[in-house]
Amino acid sequence: MAEEKKLTTRAEDFAEWYNEVVQRAELADYAPVRGSMVIRPWGYGIWENMQRALDAMLKDTGHENAYFPLLIPMSFIEKEKKHVEGFAPELAVVTQAGGKPLEEPYAIRPTSETIIYAMYAKWVQSYRDLPILLNQWANVMRWELRTKLFLRTTEFLWQEGHTAHATAAEAEAEAVMILGVYRKFVEEWIAMPPLTGVKSDNEKFAGAVRSHSIEALMQDNKALQAGTSHFLGQNFAKQFELKFQSEGGQEEYAWNTSWGVSTRLVGGMVMTHGDDAGLVVPPKIAPVQVVIVPILGGDDEAAVRAKCDEVAARLKAAGVRVKLDARDNVTAGAKYYEWERKGVPFRVEIGPKDLAKGSVALVRRLTPEGEKRKAFVPEAEAIATLPTRLDAFQKELLEAARKRREASSVRGVQSIDELAKALDEGAGFVFTGWSGDPAVEAEVKERTKATLRAIVDEEFRSPAAPSKCVSGKGASIAEVAWARAY
Amino acid sequence: MAEEKKLTTRAEDFAEWYNEVVQRAELADYAPVRGSMVIRPWGYGIWENMQRALDAMLKDTGHENAYFPLLIPMSFIEKEKKHVEGFAPELAVVTQAGGKPLEEPYAIRPTSETIIYAMYAKWVQSYRDLPILLNQWANVMRWELRTKLFLRTTEFLWQEGHTAHATAAEAEAEAVMILGVYRKFVEEWIAMPPLTGVKSDNEKFAGAVRSHSIEALMQDNKALQAGTSHFLGQNFAKQFELKFQSEGGQEEYAWNTSWGVSTRLVGGMVMTHGDDAGLVVPPKIAPVQVVIVPILGGDDEAAVRAKCDEVAARLKAAGVRVKLDARDNVTAGAKYYEWERKGVPFRVEIGPKDLAKGSVALVRRLTPEGEKRKAFVPEAEAIATLPTRLDAFQKELLEAARKRREASSVRGVQSIDELAKALDEGAGFVFTGWSGDPAVEAEVKERTKATLRAIVDEEFRSPAAPSKCVSGKGASIAEVAWARAY
Repeated sequence: MAEEKKLTTRAEDFAEWYNEVVQRAELADYAPVRGSMVIRPWGYGIWENMQRALDAMLKDTGHENAYFPLLIPMSFIEKEKKHVEGFAPELAVVTQAGGKPLEEPYAIRPTSETIIYAMYAKWVQSYRDLPILLNQWANVMRWELRTKLFLRTTEFLWQEGHTAHATAAEAEAEAVMILGVYRKFVEEWIAMPPLTGVKSDNEKFAGAVRSHSIEALMQDNKALQAGTSHFLGQNFAKQFELKFQSEGGQEEYAWNTSWGVSTRLVGGMVMTHGDDAGLVVPPKIAPVQVVIVPILGGDDEAAVRAKCDEVAARLKAAGVRVKLDARDNVTAGAKYYEWERKGVPFRVEIGPKDLAKGSVALVRRLTPEGEKRKAFVPEAEAIATLPTRLDAFQKELLEAARKRREASSVRGVQSIDELAKALDEGAGFVFTGWSGDPAVEAEVKERTKATLRAIVDEEFRSPAAPSKCVSGKGASIAEVAWARAY
Repeated sequence: MAEEKKLTTRAEDFAEWYNEVVQRAELADYAPVRGSMVIRPWGYGIWENMQRALDAMLKDTGHENAYFPLLIPMSFIEKEKKHVEGFAPELAVVTQAGGKPLEEPYAIRPTSETIIYAMYAKWVQSYRDLPILLNQWANVMRWELRTKLFLRTTEFLWQEGHTAHATAAEAEAEAVMILGVYRKFVEEWIAMPPLTGVKSDNEKFAGAVRSHSIEALMQDNKALQAGTSHFLGQNFAKQFELKFQSEGGQEEYAWNTSWGVSTRLVGGMVMTHGDDAGLVVPPKIAPVQVVIVPILGGDDEAAVRAKCDEVAARLKAAGVRVKLDARDNVTAGAKYYEWERKGVPFRVEIGPKDLAKGSVALVRRLTPEGEKRKAFVPEAEAIATLPTRLDAFQKELLEAARKRREASSVRGVQSIDELAKALDEGAGFVFTGWSGDPAVEAEVKERTKATLRAIVDEEFRSPAAPSKCVSGKGASIAEVAWARAY
């Protein structure tokens, strides 16, 4: 069977390994639409778990969901100058509908600031109508030339939050608060520990005053922008006449934020935790946390099946997402291989010998160094301890990813030569001083292919602040992290 | 304030009443895109509750979610002859992307049979790969000329299930099973009791062998097609080469079903339960089931607020979706009016007098005849009984809707004259015999504006089967229900 062909290893070719894992773990498949993909049930189940977790966090912080149109009149997108510059080259355009050419073409939303703020302008009269704190889960389209499953596809799924506030300070606080929600979400649920910081003007969102970002590090030491939160100032409010009467009676423009994370996070999960056997899914977002595989074929087959049913029911009652793989026409070995490739955290094997001993074989998808991968555990103990074993597994993934990130970070770099050398030697994030000059970004990119990922937030700064710009020219005004990136 | 203008009543102008309720209850608003709408948080919250309930029912019956592309190559849609005839006039077409004209245009999906079965063809080799039981929650687009908020919009949200089976019998059973899920879902959650039946060839889905439907009756006695489940035979399988090797080793085409319900259900809810004060939302799908309004302004304001917080916390702990409306700048009367318009099932009023008596005022959005709308109830009793009061409210809505449907049904009608008369006198569903001749449908529609809603399933048939066709020509082969419809 084609399926039995070994995966390319990460060391051989990380990009090829990624593509194979995504397809062979049945996360996604290529679609017959340029740059588009089909998200298959295993991938969609992971995305649903991410959605549910983040949606609850956004509701807990006062946001409500709504839904705005897919199509945006071209004239709307053209209103905000920077915005149209950023997005026009990537638009998919509807020019015909209902059998006729349209008078004004529509763009399929690449993001929804324009149409959403046009609606807010209709709804807001007074400061009493503010803030507006809305989010939508939606599909968006950006006609990218080079695409890659989950990481960059012409169509993708995301959430986009859009808020309107009476003051700049309130909007800025919202953008920062959401960045914190994103960080907590990806750390706690995806076990992906990002840096946080602010984008340079060069890298910020088209139309934003300031873009905050969470930047995760993949196993190939490339960075992945995993979520962004933008303070938009009054840029859109002025173009869409989003005005309100203040408490003092003046007419003022509102202040906006927008923020989003996307199905790209599924790709980030693959590249953070996967290994040469395939996917590793963090338990909190795994559609199946424990798979039970019966060892069939002996005289005790009925008893083995009954025991598997019982263990499955007890695990389910304990709140574990459990799957009993009782298929007849697939060998136990093939099942092991399949569920490992799909990254299920724990496997329970139950056969006639286990019945006799009252135990089960418990197999961990990943094992901390020095521990055995497979353990024979009394049945009751296995059931009782699996929830805490799953928690421990989740924490270990986060800890391992954090250690990897730190181990590959290089600090105190003083020149572009040194920066290039560090990257060539496999560094992840390289921290340097920066003068704020965009020419330095251009030079670094030209020489190293790395980009300025973020002006890092305080927590991630080096103990001694760098005094000089990495270019050698001028003083540093901020410590920044560079990396090659997806 | 404009908001204080009284609603048009249902008796004055049902269509106008509907539009006003949808907008003034903030379910939705018109968008600056032809025939499109914005679903506002109150409307989206109701849709989310519907989604969550139906999604669980679909998962319980073995279905998984996935996501397929928004864009469909035009050549795919053109493959199934009936399908393209049905959908071509309503397509929105992308002809440019990434700044260039496309070689082959894409349609925005009006429904996804074509692209989904093209993918299934890639995934299925053997009978072991069947059945495939997938569902997706997605936006679709049909460029309709006459639009109406929720009921018919160019873009709408829905779920579409698509399954592939090894035998016709299995696929037919799936289509019928799903119809049962839909019926249970709309009855139990939306308190909307539909008829079930099969569509005539004239009314069936473009590309289906047989379309099953649930048909609900609105308060203006017009029918609403609330969900459909289609047995597609091998029509799409043959066009998309969806083949498998059978257990006997032959190559065979798979058998498909597809089925969907949409945001149209929100409109159905409005027209089933609303009254002249606005919306009435069934408790099981209400984003807020109980609103607490403090009577502020007296000396005891702090104590009133504290009591409201306490009652809210206790109701929340009892599993009730509760909202405390503690706004300062809105009078209690204006709050009553607003939450009634939004259809919240119960209101709790707490003021200084209530504090002294240890009671609260409990106000029901709708009251069974002979009961008081407002009751003063000891606080502990109110908290303890609200969950069961909500259940009773839900059941009463369903019962009232069922009685209304039955009261307006007319059976035993023998001629088109009689059918026209019944409809003019305000009948809802009119049951007659039918010969199976599509010319009769055309004649009835011409004379009465009614359409054949369904060849009704056994449960809904009259005790004595009609022997003759309503046209007077020929014997009846099936009892059918006619109605004017949305």
